[in-house]
Amino acid sequence: MSDAAPQTTHGIIHGVGLGPGDADLMSVRAHRLLTNARHVAYFRKEGRAGRARGIVQGMLRSDVIEFAMEYPVTTEIPLSDPGYNAALSGFYTRCTAHLRDLAGQGEDVVVLCEGDPFFYGSFMHLYERLRGEVPVQVVPAITGMSAAWTATNRPITWGDDVLSVLMATLPEEDLVRHMEAADALVVMKIGRNIDKVRSALRRAGKYDAAWLVEYASMEGQTVQKLAGAEGRVTPYFSIVLVHGSGRRP
Amino acid sequence: MSDAAPQTTHGIIHGVGLGPGDADLMSVRAHRLLTNARHVAYFRKEGRAGRARGIVQGMLRSDVIEFAMEYPVTTEIPLSDPGYNAALSGFYTRCTAHLRDLAGQGEDVVVLCEGDPFFYGSFMHLYERLRGEVPVQVVPAITGMSAAWTATNRPITWGDDVLSVLMATLPEEDLVRHMEAADALVVMKIGRNIDKVRSALRRAGKYDAAWLVEYASMEGQTVQKLAGAEGRVTPYFSIVLVHGSGRRP
Repeated sequence: MSDAAPQTTHGIIHGVGLGPGDADLMSVRAHRLLTNARHVAYFRKEGRAGRARGIVQGMLRSDVIEFAMEYPVTTEIPLSDPGYNAALSGFYTRCTAHLRDLAGQGEDVVVLCEGDPFFYGSFMHLYERLRGEVPVQVVPAITGMSAAWTATNRPITWGDDVLSVLMATLPEEDLVRHMEAADALVVMKIGRNIDKVRSALRRAGKYDAAWLVEYASMEGQTVQKLAGAEGRVTPYFSIVLVHGSGRRP
Repeated sequence: MSDAAPQTTHGIIHGVGLGPGDADLMSVRAHRLLTNARHVAYFRKEGRAGRARGIVQGMLRSDVIEFAMEYPVTTEIPLSDPGYNAALSGFYTRCTAHLRDLAGQGEDVVVLCEGDPFFYGSFMHLYERLRGEVPVQVVPAITGMSAAWTATNRPITWGDDVLSVLMATLPEEDLVRHMEAADALVVMKIGRNIDKVRSALRRAGKYDAAWLVEYASMEGQTVQKLAGAEGRVTPYFSIVLVHGSGRRP
């Protein structure tokens, strides 16, 4: 576990991607790190068990010390609210201080991350504050979008297809422009943005080709054509996909 | 291993993503499937050991039966050559016939796939020919691009960043247009297309922000700014990255 550690008295902060949700899809390295960890940390909403923590249920050491990092704000607060960034920034700084303390005491810490830590993850906000001060190592992981396209039983990209990954939180005009330009699409952070996504896909001429995947690789996974899910309330972690159709021998 | 198998006498063809190259980064499920497999199959170039096969060296059963699927053409033959598609199509059909025979005899087969099988993978050409005839199950994996951005020690996407994945085999005009439109970029299949990629990045105003990663997560991994690698001969499996810089509290 510490083979790659610098020769210092510092512990290492491991940002460990757990993958899309099915514990069987985490990497061998992630599995080894978290089952051996004395300290684990993870984000969660106040009052919730935490999605990352849920993935590793039953896999941690009996004497593990847990550090739950509870978000002070949620997706219900508009991103445009001036208090949003300030509150989050203070929160990340406090989390970072605790992790830095642990590392300073020589303790390794495994930070449990949903998906891949460097792909739209929250860990990067800790990482940017820790790098250069504390040894940090990141373990990549299977993304939620990989689990989603696998669940559709169809390849997402072929040949020279262009794949674009879009956040449904973008303005509709931006969504349309990118949807028109790409061959294959992944749209994430759906939730309450679903009507905007539908409208943008229609304007880009790709609505009938779109799929909706909820809870990819997790309990409750659903896979259906988006057009067949009219009126459905979609969770935030849904993913909308349009498959490419490039060159194929 | 066969928990999810239909109740038939057929074996299952497993398309198993091995991830970016480091065996430690394959999923727990992939590891279990391949270490227990009686039959494994994999693509390779004639006269080569095979990259997928190399990843699992020393991990297979001693009585494993291997089926090496040797490409009749290589990347050296132009995609525009009319014989290219015909030769590849016949090859995939022959491979499929053998896999179908094994499955018909009740044998499970693990097809070893570099990267994620449904993300620009070769397995999809077998998959499209087997689906509906034989039970096929696909295991997603960590992509080479995830290993590449992890190797740069910088997150690839933040907030609402748009990520586009481009093949360097595309015409330069197409590359420029997509490079201008996206916040974060992944360019794959570099090799002899490196000069075109450099030119397109310059025209899109993103050359100085670009990174070159060779052999991500593998022996011989290199990470450097693209501008610092002028004149370097880059392997086909190199990846060029431009990181996004979206909202960050």
